Amino acid sequence: MDLHALTRELNQKNDSKIVMLVGDGLGGLPMTPGGKTELETAKTPNLDRLATKGVQGASIPVAPGIAPGSGPGHLGLFGYDPIKYVIGRGALEATGIGFELQEGDVAVRGNYCTLDANGNISDRRAGRIPSEESAPLADVLAKVSIPGIEVFVRPVKEHRFVVVFRGEGLGGNVKDTDPQRTGVPPLAPVAACPKSEKTAGIAAEFVKQACQLLAGQPKANGLTLRGFSEKPNLPSYDEVYGLRAAAIAVYPMYKGLARLVGMDIVGSAQTLAEQMDVLKQSWNDYDFFFIHFKYTDSTGEDGNFDAKVKRTEELDGILPAIEALGPAVLIVTGDHSTPAYLKSHSWHPVPTLLVSDCCRPDPHQTFGEDTCITGGLGHFEAKYLMTLALANAGRMGKYGA
Amino acid sequence: MDLHALTRELNQKNDSKIVMLVGDGLGGLPMTPGGKTELETAKTPNLDRLATKGVQGASIPVAPGIAPGSGPGHLGLFGYDPIKYVIGRGALEATGIGFELQEGDVAVRGNYCTLDANGNISDRRAGRIPSEESAPLADVLAKVSIPGIEVFVRPVKEHRFVVVFRGEGLGGNVKDTDPQRTGVPPLAPVAACPKSEKTAGIAAEFVKQACQLLAGQPKANGLTLRGFSEKPNLPSYDEVYGLRAAAIAVYPMYKGLARLVGMDIVGSAQTLAEQMDVLKQSWNDYDFFFIHFKYTDSTGEDGNFDAKVKRTEELDGILPAIEALGPAVLIVTGDHSTPAYLKSHSWHPVPTLLVSDCCRPDPHQTFGEDTCITGGLGHFEAKYLMTLALANAGRMGKYGA
Repeated sequence: MDLHALTRELNQKNDSKIVMLVGDGLGGLPMTPGGKTELETAKTPNLDRLATKGVQGASIPVAPGIAPGSGPGHLGLFGYDPIKYVIGRGALEATGIGFELQEGDVAVRGNYCTLDANGNISDRRAGRIPSEESAPLADVLAKVSIPGIEVFVRPVKEHRFVVVFRGEGLGGNVKDTDPQRTGVPPLAPVAACPKSEKTAGIAAEFVKQACQLLAGQPKANGLTLRGFSEKPNLPSYDEVYGLRAAAIAVYPMYKGLARLVGMDIVGSAQTLAEQMDVLKQSWNDYDFFFIHFKYTDSTGEDGNFDAKVKRTEELDGILPAIEALGPAVLIVTGDHSTPAYLKSHSWHPVPTLLVSDCCRPDPHQTFGEDTCITGGLGHFEAKYLMTLALANAGRMGKYGA
Repeated sequence: MDLHALTRELNQKNDSKIVMLVGDGLGGLPMTPGGKTELETAKTPNLDRLATKGVQGASIPVAPGIAPGSGPGHLGLFGYDPIKYVIGRGALEATGIGFELQEGDVAVRGNYCTLDANGNISDRRAGRIPSEESAPLADVLAKVSIPGIEVFVRPVKEHRFVVVFRGEGLGGNVKDTDPQRTGVPPLAPVAACPKSEKTAGIAAEFVKQACQLLAGQPKANGLTLRGFSEKPNLPSYDEVYGLRAAAIAVYPMYKGLARLVGMDIVGSAQTLAEQMDVLKQSWNDYDFFFIHFKYTDSTGEDGNFDAKVKRTEELDGILPAIEALGPAVLIVTGDHSTPAYLKSHSWHPVPTLLVSDCCRPDPHQTFGEDTCITGGLGHFEAKYLMTLALANAGRMGKYGA
């Protein structure tokens, strides 16, 4: 089913505001049999009060058993089928460091590696060179010069960097050059379709010049390229939902994902309190607000149950500030679960709460993993959250007569 | 969504074991309003104990309202979309009697019929000729000789048999020869596509010689052919999941279905206790174990509520033997419901229980139809059970970055 064919046809405008508050990795697990999850352990008086007024459910990010990365996790929440819309690794890395991809760009994830005297890889990650040492290498590589092509090199973390090629007629379908083992040289860039042959040639020239520029480096004297990808072609929030959308996020990755679906990035908040200030200031200029909170995920990734509980309580604390603005629809959810027990993203359904004056509340009076499985929204694929949001905001007309 | 595209990409190997215990036709109905189902009536202390540790849900075999046969029922459990993957009747019948189809074989379901002096059908099922009388006819038909073609004839039950044609260039798309009424002759085999014209010619020759061989028979002096089908082309468990899979089943149909998805058939157990012995013996050699128990279905088909309750208790009794082996993931489910009340397969969702150390237990402390509808797995299509199993076993990587 093409959901956007429906929302394009049925969306209608009004003065309502929709707020989607995303606690990254919100869902969790008990640490011991019979225990409670992070969200169930946290003292969340505001979420519990909203649960009484609202309707909750279990959001399946992609499909049962599939643990998503941040890309597909957020695409689902934004109503973009995360199986249909795939963001290539290069494009996601560029997005993640805040690089604004343009139509026709090809983005590639690079790894510095160590080459021996014969040109064979002796370390695929250049001894996991620290970021302080690898960051300046991006400036060194900026000296690569390829006629008719703009080349952007940006550091990521440790041995990782991003390179973006900008020019005419560049396809993004080039095979990885990482041979995935040591003792052999990097592979040559090979086009996987005729449209990408020019890109493969440019990549080969880039590698050649880059190796000359890196020749004196003790660890990072070579490189491999992977995840060649074009700018993902996502229809915009305005086009598919008729929404002027704003993203209030701290981390580049989430700003980048929001930008890919046509949201404006507003403010430069660094804390939740500052995010609330930005929300207030931009309230009149937008219809939809995506507010991203990272720390429920990062504490989960660290395996720190107690810290995740605290971060969840922090998230709960800002709800009155959002409610004071009077959104027609307030959604609290996550892009996936990140149980401290697993120290990683997981496939478990995400507790999701929707409050509006016409949401048909369910009987639950608290908000957590146990309640959401019997909530009024049922178990649903995340991609349906946006049609629910629009409907609850009175922004969807009737389908058929 | 092509689930196997995801599992192919994301599956990763480890030392975990997954056990899927299938009580055929496990789901049921109360016999009287307000009553309990077979599973709810049965004393199942082990299932109830596992329900406390595990997560349950309602598995929809194909789609709401669709009662599946054994083929689609099991394909769903095995993670093969039962709408996309269809096993033709001829191939299913051959599989059901343990005939190992080879690539390029065409399998056909045959019915003996009675022809009158004019060659018109007077009884479409040859008076439901008893199996003792029809079985020897397969040997008679084995005398059919067609140059370049191997012909296999195997008895099934009463008036039914299977014929398999083996040779070069045989398509499986030939129309049924059963006119579905009496007073007319059987239809000629007609190819429904050019690739099947050779098969139609061979089938016509088979019918001609067969009728000569059967000429003296009092009841079964003719035959009709239906469900022409090639060997189903199912990708293997190893290829789509990275699993070395073993099937521990008693009946040929379930061994055959398991073989079609690349499982090894291990042991020759005739009882549950023997199946447990086989499980123990083969524990180190496989990653995944499909254990099939027939009698919850056959008692349901017989309309014998009490017998189904007893068989369910018998199934419950073997759980400690499975648990003692320490599987990472233990699933108890059925391929469909077979309520004694209906004496047939039904469409009702199947109580399904999954236990692992990261399954996110739901609050239920018993296992049955009523609890599963509010379980943590929700209501889900059976085809997702395998991605859930892999995820819970730590055998699925993250989707997207």
